[in-house]
Amino acid sequence: MKIANRMSLLGSETAFAVSAEAAELAATGKKIYPFHLGDINLPTPKTICSAVSEAINQGKTGYCPAPGIPELREALAVDVGEARGIKYDMDNVSIQPGGKPSIGKYIAATMEKGDSVLYPNPGYPIYESQIEFYKGIAIPYGYVNTSEGLKLDFNAIESGIGNGAKHIFYNNYNNPTGASSSDDEIERLAKLVIENDMFLISDDAYFDTLYEGEPRSIASFPGMYERTLTMYTFSKKFAMTGWRLGASIGPKEIIEQINRLNVNMESCTTHFVQYAGLAGLRAPKKETQDILDALKKRRDLLVNILDGIEGIETHMPEAGFYVFPKITDLLKNTGFDSVEEFRKIILKDTGVSFCGRHHFGRPLNNEADSYIRLAFSGINIEDLEEGMKLFKDWIASRVK
Amino acid sequence: MKIANRMSLLGSETAFAVSAEAAELAATGKKIYPFHLGDINLPTPKTICSAVSEAINQGKTGYCPAPGIPELREALAVDVGEARGIKYDMDNVSIQPGGKPSIGKYIAATMEKGDSVLYPNPGYPIYESQIEFYKGIAIPYGYVNTSEGLKLDFNAIESGIGNGAKHIFYNNYNNPTGASSSDDEIERLAKLVIENDMFLISDDAYFDTLYEGEPRSIASFPGMYERTLTMYTFSKKFAMTGWRLGASIGPKEIIEQINRLNVNMESCTTHFVQYAGLAGLRAPKKETQDILDALKKRRDLLVNILDGIEGIETHMPEAGFYVFPKITDLLKNTGFDSVEEFRKIILKDTGVSFCGRHHFGRPLNNEADSYIRLAFSGINIEDLEEGMKLFKDWIASRVK
Repeated sequence: MKIANRMSLLGSETAFAVSAEAAELAATGKKIYPFHLGDINLPTPKTICSAVSEAINQGKTGYCPAPGIPELREALAVDVGEARGIKYDMDNVSIQPGGKPSIGKYIAATMEKGDSVLYPNPGYPIYESQIEFYKGIAIPYGYVNTSEGLKLDFNAIESGIGNGAKHIFYNNYNNPTGASSSDDEIERLAKLVIENDMFLISDDAYFDTLYEGEPRSIASFPGMYERTLTMYTFSKKFAMTGWRLGASIGPKEIIEQINRLNVNMESCTTHFVQYAGLAGLRAPKKETQDILDALKKRRDLLVNILDGIEGIETHMPEAGFYVFPKITDLLKNTGFDSVEEFRKIILKDTGVSFCGRHHFGRPLNNEADSYIRLAFSGINIEDLEEGMKLFKDWIASRVK
Repeated sequence: MKIANRMSLLGSETAFAVSAEAAELAATGKKIYPFHLGDINLPTPKTICSAVSEAINQGKTGYCPAPGIPELREALAVDVGEARGIKYDMDNVSIQPGGKPSIGKYIAATMEKGDSVLYPNPGYPIYESQIEFYKGIAIPYGYVNTSEGLKLDFNAIESGIGNGAKHIFYNNYNNPTGASSSDDEIERLAKLVIENDMFLISDDAYFDTLYEGEPRSIASFPGMYERTLTMYTFSKKFAMTGWRLGASIGPKEIIEQINRLNVNMESCTTHFVQYAGLAGLRAPKKETQDILDALKKRRDLLVNILDGIEGIETHMPEAGFYVFPKITDLLKNTGFDSVEEFRKIILKDTGVSFCGRHHFGRPLNNEADSYIRLAFSGINIEDLEEGMKLFKDWIASRVK
């Protein structure tokens, strides 16, 4: 059986390899401290869980329309629109089996073969994978380390635009770096997109997990409404990662095309799960606030511990599940040349499992520093503390 | 916003337009007799429904592996293997959000741009759509009307092979025609596939809905195990259409590639729904037998009524939900030139809604006869009888 050539263009999430390594070690009886997981170990809110049985009992077990049930499309249009100060209606919403399907469907619907597309790197590896699978030219842009945290590398973005990029993936509250944009930064990006007649896909996976203040979306900025496709997901805010529920939200002419892809790819998203999502949008705020409160406690503790380790530089993420410490000095102090080597030994010795920067895209030319990603969504606070103690002690024993 | 050129290659299921027409008419207060639906209006078995809450309570709400949960992959390997007299293990199984995703994923994984691919027409329209979307050459093959029902048109298949076809979609217990293959017919097809070093995708959506006897799969025939990808779905046998659960089953080297597409396209299929599917495979046989019994009653009544209408020629389908009567003479007797015109007037006058042959692919050059498709999966037996009475009376009033 011959495999088609296009499959050589397809990437993956190499972070899964870390999960597999950790699972293998766990199988030998070793206790694992899972800082590698972008998954959430908190239960889905009760209102959502009960809505499933109710929907099944009401017979929501047959097909539903390919763009999703009208009730959920309408509710999301209102919810997502209000949170961004813009107006959507149900024709702006295409329900998806998760946040991820929007990536490939956007690319398939709008990117011509040979088009250049900017994407964040470090970033979610599926952007690059889908751009290249559909034969676009993936142009990475990185982040610049500043005293206020990691900031978009506008030099790289402008250079990509100079090279003809017509699309840009933008992930405010970025995975893996935790970087978030100031209003000025968003405005600068919006201006570039408009001036250069580009289109932007805004991965809003972590938009609703901002721990303090009000999240800002680039779709709200003047002139961006018609140039932004929002990737929405229920996964993070509602602890629904395994439920596979999300949406593409944006201009109707793109949504219509994405609906056509829905018909071809999966017919529809699980019918009764859409009612569960609807219940989530209408659930008491406390249920989602509880999730955020638990995550915030973990974040604060984790950053606090990391701040006490010499050679590590950590920025407090405003949203999301990830801390992205710079460990350049730590590697030097402990005598390691590569993050991967460092990561593997710590995992083996302590059971503390995390990802490296290299799991989120091929390193760029100008990168001098080394980073790791510690996720705090999949580990309870006791294990977080215990694991970090092991991590800290291990480092102390290695410093030369 | 410019839409990518490749979107002009993408087809659709035009049968959805019939649903929309029927819904529009229903909204005016007209009673609709839904013979157009490939959906099932019978409840999903209780064992399956209860398994959902149980899995959610047990926390099966996070991500699971992209190829599916090992328990379900193993159970399907055994179940599907035993029903076909062949041996699969879990590495031969990739869980999918429905039966449909296997179509595009198979094409993406194995078909080169410019490859010729045979597909049934009349047939499920997504085969052609996905072949053309990925820039293959879609070569239709039809069916020949015989006294034993519709049979594969081997002239067309052989001509396609002569033109270089390397892949063939085969849908035994075909939608929409209800055609099923004798052992001889399957053997002849298998021989062609092997002799010409081809690969076959076997759409087994209706394999488990055979009303009498044992279903046969081409994967069971000598030499075909390594040349067949089976499209499996829970939708029909278990009345789970809206649950979106299915699998690609076949040689490991293809399954590995399909797993890579899972990672890129949807991360995983809804976690707890996979436990529900597992419960379905282990449920008392009576629960699925009840579904088949209900469908069989409808089928028998429907065919019986159709047999009493002059100008209609009907074959009893051995499996599936569809009757595909030839109405060439009926059109003549009632003075219609086109199936579409006939269909629309009957819908408007009586509320009886069905699809025409043209909803299942562009008619072929050599087609002299006219057909309609009546589905009996989405209409209860009382409405089926009532609707067919209206249909028969309407025809009687129109015969010239």
